[in-house]
Amino acid sequence: MERLRIGLIGCGTVGGQVYKILKRKRRNLYWKTGILFEVVKVCDKAKKRRKELKIPSSLFTTDPHQVTNDPNIDIIVELIGGTEEAFEYLCEAIKKGKSVVTANKALLSEKGRTIFDLCEENRVYIGFEASVAGSIPIIKTIRESFIGNNFSKLLGILNGTTNFILSKMTHLDIDFNQALKIAKEKGYAEAEPYFDISGLDSAHKLSILTKLAFNKSVSWRNIYTEGIDRIEKMDVEFARELGYRVKLLGIAKKDRNILELRVHPVLLPATHLLSLVEDVYNAIYIEGDLIGNSLLYGKGAGGKPAASAVISDLVEIGMKLKMKNYGNMKFREDSTLELLPFDEIKTKYYFRFTAVDKPGVLAKIAKVLGEKNISIASVIQKKESPQKAVPIVMLTHPSKEKNVSEALKIIDKLDIIKKPTIKIRVEEEDGNI
Amino acid sequence: MERLRIGLIGCGTVGGQVYKILKRKRRNLYWKTGILFEVVKVCDKAKKRRKELKIPSSLFTTDPHQVTNDPNIDIIVELIGGTEEAFEYLCEAIKKGKSVVTANKALLSEKGRTIFDLCEENRVYIGFEASVAGSIPIIKTIRESFIGNNFSKLLGILNGTTNFILSKMTHLDIDFNQALKIAKEKGYAEAEPYFDISGLDSAHKLSILTKLAFNKSVSWRNIYTEGIDRIEKMDVEFARELGYRVKLLGIAKKDRNILELRVHPVLLPATHLLSLVEDVYNAIYIEGDLIGNSLLYGKGAGGKPAASAVISDLVEIGMKLKMKNYGNMKFREDSTLELLPFDEIKTKYYFRFTAVDKPGVLAKIAKVLGEKNISIASVIQKKESPQKAVPIVMLTHPSKEKNVSEALKIIDKLDIIKKPTIKIRVEEEDGNI
Repeated sequence: MERLRIGLIGCGTVGGQVYKILKRKRRNLYWKTGILFEVVKVCDKAKKRRKELKIPSSLFTTDPHQVTNDPNIDIIVELIGGTEEAFEYLCEAIKKGKSVVTANKALLSEKGRTIFDLCEENRVYIGFEASVAGSIPIIKTIRESFIGNNFSKLLGILNGTTNFILSKMTHLDIDFNQALKIAKEKGYAEAEPYFDISGLDSAHKLSILTKLAFNKSVSWRNIYTEGIDRIEKMDVEFARELGYRVKLLGIAKKDRNILELRVHPVLLPATHLLSLVEDVYNAIYIEGDLIGNSLLYGKGAGGKPAASAVISDLVEIGMKLKMKNYGNMKFREDSTLELLPFDEIKTKYYFRFTAVDKPGVLAKIAKVLGEKNISIASVIQKKESPQKAVPIVMLTHPSKEKNVSEALKIIDKLDIIKKPTIKIRVEEEDGNI
Repeated sequence: MERLRIGLIGCGTVGGQVYKILKRKRRNLYWKTGILFEVVKVCDKAKKRRKELKIPSSLFTTDPHQVTNDPNIDIIVELIGGTEEAFEYLCEAIKKGKSVVTANKALLSEKGRTIFDLCEENRVYIGFEASVAGSIPIIKTIRESFIGNNFSKLLGILNGTTNFILSKMTHLDIDFNQALKIAKEKGYAEAEPYFDISGLDSAHKLSILTKLAFNKSVSWRNIYTEGIDRIEKMDVEFARELGYRVKLLGIAKKDRNILELRVHPVLLPATHLLSLVEDVYNAIYIEGDLIGNSLLYGKGAGGKPAASAVISDLVEIGMKLKMKNYGNMKFREDSTLELLPFDEIKTKYYFRFTAVDKPGVLAKIAKVLGEKNISIASVIQKKESPQKAVPIVMLTHPSKEKNVSEALKIIDKLDIIKKPTIKIRVEEEDGNI
């Protein structure tokens, strides 16, 4: 085979770029690979795309099944997002013996295992580099480049929108809503940014990385996920004062056969490389027994970076199809691995209590913490608030999540406490970066 | 094929680890790939390695030809270093139809094109991920993950020894010789560290990356290379004061059909991600038309990180051999690309003049610079030196290398100048990281 006949479903931000780049770089890609990457059918439910992208009428359809069922197509690129329809089209294509490329993190984090199994059964390839962190080659790096490693830890800034908001809060000294507004104006946040802000988008991506790095299928539904909307300007400032930055991280840690997964804002030492990842950039920090630690950094979103990843998948699968015999690395499942219940995690904490400005307040809080075995590492208490309620900021030594939530439940009911306490976990076992 | 029969030539730091890891992780690698990675012959000229690594006598030999000529071997891993013998063994193996894996940057930067051509001719595969930046998957990322991109810029911290020395000079406030001593004590510098210090090791690696990113074979001999041994403690301090760090970089820039390659110390803005790469770590920053900018960071040397890269090559080639049909991406050569003569580069400069402490000195220096069209951006002049010779530090606006060397030649002959002027190029066209 010297031609790879491509069917493209969805030509929005990413799909549109894929179409344009394949056209513009066709000759260059042929020169590099010996393969002619030819888009033979394009589907989008929005008819206007045809004109916008100058797609010949003969290639364009609004019916996805015309793509998935076309016997002249070798590979389907699905870039519509959403889970139900995308799942239907992918399965249809795979069953017809077509390889697939997708950027659909929601779908893979929910039905990855089913889709991977279906691909192996039908002896077709699947590429999904664009599903996590845009142009950053984290999928290939974990699956191939670091294949000799056993991983112990992965920390990822996996969502550009939330990283942009936190960056702006840190450097422009503005609050969450102001930062969100800028993000929307710049096109970095959608009109309805719930999936980003809530951490769910990061959880989808962490689920996919977990499958690859730890050979374990875990739906995003089973990953503890907390967003950034409760972080106030004040927390970002206190964090700075204490030598930290606030970041939304996807966290995976493995200790023997116990796997710990979570997505939430953290205080990260200001000197950690991940603390220096600003704006819409993404980065993944990973530790393995051979590599030590490593970091990959780049653009996590946007048409061109994601298209770059899609094209690398197309080339890889094109090269494999050219060799005719099927040969794929299996998606393995490690049945010995168990998930750590979230209550059992142990980490340092940042607390911000909002308390009345009276003597003895700190003693009352400290008493509850002591009873729950939570030991205090440092306290910042700001005096003389005009509102008669002052923030008390505390860093703890490593403590159990269960004890912390129990303690905060009790503390928040004390009459000296004026608002629900803000709790941010601190990520810094070992300053080895 | 379910077995990949490996012949290992050289079992020092890296080779020894490859042997041990393949033994220890054999079952795990089989589980992941369906391939049994079996070391069937090991060669080292030092007999003692056999005992040290507990290699069965039946596998061990001191004669490399017994490995390259063994018909039962599918793939040769060459980890002896040096260019002449390694070249002989690799060619012998390739001609016998064996695929090869090597970490030999000196060899590839000198004879890469010949070796790549020989591989294609004999339809065998070559892996060399470990030749540049240890565990960092930069080879695969450029060749595969970023294949859709046209690159415009690559900046790399490619040598751990020199980065360690510069880090220590910056943070411990010590001079070059003290830092080198620590590096030797820690095993980060060899007894004879000439290749590292002189920048030649970085030039080897830049040559390999240039072939992959820009499809251009350039021997390290044709890359302008300057080491770090002339950098004084004082320069590191002035750099800090001006908001920079001193780093040894491999630099490649492409503008239309002109390629600019060089290895030398630079002043890099302290906020640039590469400035934060400390100690023996390596990192590569790369810009492409689709990805924007990206950075890969990790351990650039050491037995395990390099072995991690060798193993990823073995797996990749093993998977390809399993598919029986030969299919490889060609190593392309871009004949339209021209090298920019080093004299023609244009960059900002840091100068440190050592001048007598008299009025009018600055005017004399400035006059020469002005005549050579070099415009001054800022000056630091320290007063009252006990030695009657004071450092005058200057940053320029972008100037031509040719003009700069001519100007310094004239200036260094002035009787007001007491020592050869130190010149460090500044890397900061676009603070986009």
